[in-house]
Amino acid sequence: MNIDSMFTITYGLYILSSKLGEKYNGHINNTCFQVTAEPPQFAVCSHKDNLTSDYIKQSKVFSISVIQEDVDLNYIGHWGFKSGRDFDKFKDILFKVGVTGAPIVLEKTVSYIECNVVREIDLGTHWLFIGEVQDADFIKKNTPVLTYSYYRNVIKGLSPKNAPTFVDKSKLSQLKEENIKVKVPEKVVSAPKEEYICSVCGYVYDSDEGDPTSGIKPGTHFRDLPEDWVCPICGVEKDMFHLV
Amino acid sequence: MNIDSMFTITYGLYILSSKLGEKYNGHINNTCFQVTAEPPQFAVCSHKDNLTSDYIKQSKVFSISVIQEDVDLNYIGHWGFKSGRDFDKFKDILFKVGVTGAPIVLEKTVSYIECNVVREIDLGTHWLFIGEVQDADFIKKNTPVLTYSYYRNVIKGLSPKNAPTFVDKSKLSQLKEENIKVKVPEKVVSAPKEEYICSVCGYVYDSDEGDPTSGIKPGTHFRDLPEDWVCPICGVEKDMFHLV
Repeated sequence: MNIDSMFTITYGLYILSSKLGEKYNGHINNTCFQVTAEPPQFAVCSHKDNLTSDYIKQSKVFSISVIQEDVDLNYIGHWGFKSGRDFDKFKDILFKVGVTGAPIVLEKTVSYIECNVVREIDLGTHWLFIGEVQDADFIKKNTPVLTYSYYRNVIKGLSPKNAPTFVDKSKLSQLKEENIKVKVPEKVVSAPKEEYICSVCGYVYDSDEGDPTSGIKPGTHFRDLPEDWVCPICGVEKDMFHLV
Repeated sequence: MNIDSMFTITYGLYILSSKLGEKYNGHINNTCFQVTAEPPQFAVCSHKDNLTSDYIKQSKVFSISVIQEDVDLNYIGHWGFKSGRDFDKFKDILFKVGVTGAPIVLEKTVSYIECNVVREIDLGTHWLFIGEVQDADFIKKNTPVLTYSYYRNVIKGLSPKNAPTFVDKSKLSQLKEENIKVKVPEKVVSAPKEEYICSVCGYVYDSDEGDPTSGIKPGTHFRDLPEDWVCPICGVEKDMFHLV
């Protein structure tokens, strides 16, 4: 058994959202597929600990907002590595309320699908929800969608701990040998490379690449980062990082 | 509602296989995702009419062979547009029998995952099978995997009628406006373009592109195709095509 081989499965990345009364929540999700054409039904999988799962269980509706390829780690961090129990994820976000009442994210998204839940399947740690499509449309056309392999190989992201595809950080070195080839931007190489890992979310600061989302240039040593620099994914401070 | 927007969901392409006694069968599948990490479990969806569904229902095992990007339409046609009720799909195919007894395709594949079925969910036209992973490994590393968008945009393939994402051929013109950008090989343009569609599987012969899998050069008119030329997907003869 080589669990790394399971990463050859192809996924997209979505914001799975729902509502409870007038409260909205959503999180990054990579498990979504169409299960029937007549009627059109989709399956999505969500960890039982996710707030969105509670909302879906109660409201019986969900939406899938398809994320565009051109996003940064802050966007992923907002939706993927923070809990809606701590703050309102939809505050200051451009969204609309769909026909089901579920929120649809309009920032950095390509399309959406809205469903009424018709089945809930208990899979242990996760719920599998089957939904019948109530509405679906483009937000913008001719825009590349974000795939999981692009996120992992180009944006250098990891899975949150509640993802079905989560891998413990102790296995991080194996991830680098991932076998899915995507076009990787050219690096500017300067000082000897150093890598620091975030102990909260697993983001790796690579000095060869810097952190373009925070204006940190390639070649910047970790020790030279500004004191107010924070993890671009989960927002914790420098002292939560350690040398890989 | 714009059903074309549902095609922004990202899928890979796999051969979903199973066994019945010493008989093996498999078919092209695009609906596969991991649902839990502990224990590792996968969900796959298969039309009730598929022979493989019958085998999975009876043997309670399935395998997912992950197809590599570098395949041609004959490969897809063999696994995706023909039924195992008509011939033995595994005859003359390189495969191995996995720990579950399910066959694993070794030709043009990157990796595999083998599961014991733990749940069967009736979704109307399709079965959703939940399987607990028994084995998973690479067949070859560092090999790009085939995605659905690459298959549709570059290989110019369509969905078989039993796929959850099947679209009626009358909607074919809309498919051409698909919004997922992928790198498309350069065309050699010569005579005015003409397109003929296969009435069985929906494959479109485009004279600008020819049919490289059968050695037909770009710029070849449909009328100039050899009499023994057959649809590269489903194998029917020329008279089953009509002008688009």
